[in-house]
Amino acid sequence: MSAPDLLTRLIAAFSRLPGVGEKSARRMVYHLLQSPADDARAMSALLAELPEKIHPCPQCHAWTDRDLCPVCADPKRDRGLICVVENASDVDVFERHRLFGGLYHVLGGHLSPLDGVGPDRLNVQSLMDRLEGVREVVLATGSSTEGESTALYLERLLEARGVKATRLARGIPMGTDLEYLDQLTLLRALEARGSA
Amino acid sequence: MSAPDLLTRLIAAFSRLPGVGEKSARRMVYHLLQSPADDARAMSALLAELPEKIHPCPQCHAWTDRDLCPVCADPKRDRGLICVVENASDVDVFERHRLFGGLYHVLGGHLSPLDGVGPDRLNVQSLMDRLEGVREVVLATGSSTEGESTALYLERLLEARGVKATRLARGIPMGTDLEYLDQLTLLRALEARGSA
Repeated sequence: MSAPDLLTRLIAAFSRLPGVGEKSARRMVYHLLQSPADDARAMSALLAELPEKIHPCPQCHAWTDRDLCPVCADPKRDRGLICVVENASDVDVFERHRLFGGLYHVLGGHLSPLDGVGPDRLNVQSLMDRLEGVREVVLATGSSTEGESTALYLERLLEARGVKATRLARGIPMGTDLEYLDQLTLLRALEARGSA
Repeated sequence: MSAPDLLTRLIAAFSRLPGVGEKSARRMVYHLLQSPADDARAMSALLAELPEKIHPCPQCHAWTDRDLCPVCADPKRDRGLICVVENASDVDVFERHRLFGGLYHVLGGHLSPLDGVGPDRLNVQSLMDRLEGVREVVLATGSSTEGESTALYLERLLEARGVKATRLARGIPMGTDLEYLDQLTLLRALEARGSA
């Protein structure tokens, strides 16, 4: 005879979200109860639309509500340049700051043999299928060991196809004191040192 | 040309929840996109039901999906004992651990003159209206200054009606080293000291 069943189930649903524990989920649900009823209704409507309207772009696999995502559909984008990222959310990071003028390709993760994630579980073949007219592929996978080996794997495939593969530069982030840097970042920055 | 509009609106809705910033909201929405579509649908259905089915219990103001909440409706509960709490979520804390055999009364906050919250903005009158046959009211408002003054205010009202008012004991929480305690808790524990 604690909270009504509906609240318990909603708290359970919220606590399955990343970074949300049972206590924060409880706070969220009680917050919604005390908010105008339209807040919960609006959130419900948006969530209902999510699986109906949002699907991966057939070309780059980023999430979109159109036939082709706005980036792939934009005639002003440089079609000779593709940036490969692990997750669709990484595309947002580039786009938010308007840092890149080419197209994207979302792998859907990184290679992880221990978890049984081979190239066939990632969007690798569809990348190979869109290399026509592409002069450079920027490999922007994560800097984890798995991200690095995924990049290495793709680099070899791309070389074999005669397409230039590049990586994001590794080095010291702007505004960071040396003393706070990890050893590996420092080593990479030293190895990749250039003229002042 | 960033994320689809629907995602942007859903991220905005999530980031209005307590303790959720824009980045965590983004992670939650992308997590839902990668989960089975039924997860988003289930959450949507539960949220739609929230304002329709859940309302305050007409007697104690705790959230319920019935005419009277299960605690108020339970004939085994001690009707002579009422525990007054600030928020409906506080009722859950007592109920989860089955610590209390009486009824509850949810104030809906605490007195806060600076924010314009007087007794008329809280469920004070409805508490006074249900004192018939009540021998004791446990004031379990928060230990903030506002919670304390709310308890003091209610204590005077209850005394005038000849109903015994008690407070939760203040003291040292179980399993805590003295050195980690704040000064006020230590002072209260010393003032309220009893026989060993």
